[in-house]
Amino acid sequence: MKLASLKQGRDGHLVVVSKDLTKYTDAGHIKPTLQAALDDWDIAAPKLAQLAEEIEVGSVPTERFHEHDCDSPLPRAYQWADGSAYINHVELVRKARGAEVPESFYSDPLMYQGGSDSFLGPRDAIPLKDKAWGLDFEAEVCVITGDVPMGASREAALDQIKLILICNDVSLRGLIPNELAKGFGFFQSKPSSAFSPVAVTPEALGPAWKDAKLHLPMLSTYNGKAFGKPQCDVDMTFDFGTLVAHAAKTRPLGAGSIIGSGTISNRDPDGGAGKPVADGGLGYSCIAEIRMIETIRDGQAKTPFMDVGDTIRIEVKDTAGHSVFGAIEQEVVKA
Amino acid sequence: MKLASLKQGRDGHLVVVSKDLTKYTDAGHIKPTLQAALDDWDIAAPKLAQLAEEIEVGSVPTERFHEHDCDSPLPRAYQWADGSAYINHVELVRKARGAEVPESFYSDPLMYQGGSDSFLGPRDAIPLKDKAWGLDFEAEVCVITGDVPMGASREAALDQIKLILICNDVSLRGLIPNELAKGFGFFQSKPSSAFSPVAVTPEALGPAWKDAKLHLPMLSTYNGKAFGKPQCDVDMTFDFGTLVAHAAKTRPLGAGSIIGSGTISNRDPDGGAGKPVADGGLGYSCIAEIRMIETIRDGQAKTPFMDVGDTIRIEVKDTAGHSVFGAIEQEVVKA
Repeated sequence: MKLASLKQGRDGHLVVVSKDLTKYTDAGHIKPTLQAALDDWDIAAPKLAQLAEEIEVGSVPTERFHEHDCDSPLPRAYQWADGSAYINHVELVRKARGAEVPESFYSDPLMYQGGSDSFLGPRDAIPLKDKAWGLDFEAEVCVITGDVPMGASREAALDQIKLILICNDVSLRGLIPNELAKGFGFFQSKPSSAFSPVAVTPEALGPAWKDAKLHLPMLSTYNGKAFGKPQCDVDMTFDFGTLVAHAAKTRPLGAGSIIGSGTISNRDPDGGAGKPVADGGLGYSCIAEIRMIETIRDGQAKTPFMDVGDTIRIEVKDTAGHSVFGAIEQEVVKA
Repeated sequence: MKLASLKQGRDGHLVVVSKDLTKYTDAGHIKPTLQAALDDWDIAAPKLAQLAEEIEVGSVPTERFHEHDCDSPLPRAYQWADGSAYINHVELVRKARGAEVPESFYSDPLMYQGGSDSFLGPRDAIPLKDKAWGLDFEAEVCVITGDVPMGASREAALDQIKLILICNDVSLRGLIPNELAKGFGFFQSKPSSAFSPVAVTPEALGPAWKDAKLHLPMLSTYNGKAFGKPQCDVDMTFDFGTLVAHAAKTRPLGAGSIIGSGTISNRDPDGGAGKPVADGGLGYSCIAEIRMIETIRDGQAKTPFMDVGDTIRIEVKDTAGHSVFGAIEQEVVKA
């Protein structure tokens, strides 16, 4: 099934959406919000699944589904932890500054604790106060979990993956070096993220969800031009079971925890760093990566970070070309 | 007024507590949970304040208040960001390893993004899986905010401080070096924190809340012995207005955000590192600090980190000796 939160109050209003994203039916009589459904998933999920079936056979009243009416599926969440599962991305960051990737990075996931109290909606503008902050998008896949006990194995963690969605993990590149140098990780450099209009159960993804990875390309369109189309399953060093178990190593995760993959990034088939889409490559899921390629190749970055008026569209389409999660589409505005 | 959340479901049940912490009255008819009250504070707060007055004059039914019936005031929260406002603590950490404190640390607050989906209650045991993880307590003061707009000034941030409480920011010292070396900040090294039974409005603190600091000592009792009694207002380089504004620099903070002070730490009156309570000093608010003192003084740390069976009690008393927030009292148990 596919679930969405129409904009309403702080937590949205829960609806069930048709497979093709054209229709929805109200689910407020089952649970008012997605968080409430996740808090009581074993009871709520079968009822929501029943509604999803009824939409497909036309036995419940539906309304036209508009993605721009949506908030992020969890407009605010209790936990947002973002991995960095695509080591190609990490290798490029390091290579651009002439540093090695530590061996442990291939066995121990990188993950940062994100802020989750004020997400942007999938069509909300991104407010930018200062161009020097170096605004960037990051296209990612995420999962929403049920309750994960502390110390859960990968397999136990996998059982708790309830929903999959996509994310624009907005980053302020200009603030990252100073912030990381302070030693406490990201804070001001990671403002509010935005998520896809729709969150989808693993079952509803069918063969596209296998081995705890999404087997579809992540499509980033920057200012109307194709910017990236890497495969989400390729070069993903850590699958979602491993990422969730990593997050739960020393504490339980509460229902409704969102765990991200980090920026999707593929190597070229020849093993080199990926080429831009314009040069026949799979492109990138963030501006920082094309800047690293430019730096490695030309000695300096040429593509600027985002400024007021720039737009980013992030979407995943299935093999038939249908949007799976709906599109994140955001414009940068002056804060 | 003083508010608490009795243990019930995921978010507790909101009650108003008497000034002396002996009685409470139900507030579920105003708002079922503290988060719900914070979401609608301008409407809820006057009604809750009215109840608080009625408790004091005896015009509402009350029950005996037991701190051990309490969950943390927000059993789970949307935002938990912890500063490191006591530079003495940072100076000691650095001194113990022979490093300088960067000049910027005196003007730009250190803050880490904490996980907020699964707090411990004030009397809940702390589960420890592996002694080598180096379990430590950290006694801190925290504030809970209303909605803070992105880019709020210190003064605007101050207006949004709705409640004050105390915290045991549980830390796994053995996991910190490797985790910080990875560059993404704390994650597994910061498991679930616990908060005091009661959260208190700035008004109810009277003269003890001044200049956005708490002017009372933080009392830590470790295994039944006095371990620390530093003044929360002394050597606090950044006040809570500054800390909240720092957290809101690049994004808004949602109602119910918890912002922490970091470990309370005072210098000695002679300007040196603080002495242990047993030596006539004000002691420490975490084990790491006494270990640093031992390392600087004797060349090696002698006090071990916490193990199964160890207990920590954290409390703030007013000038008349009454507990202000109730006590955090936790025992370490085998996970």
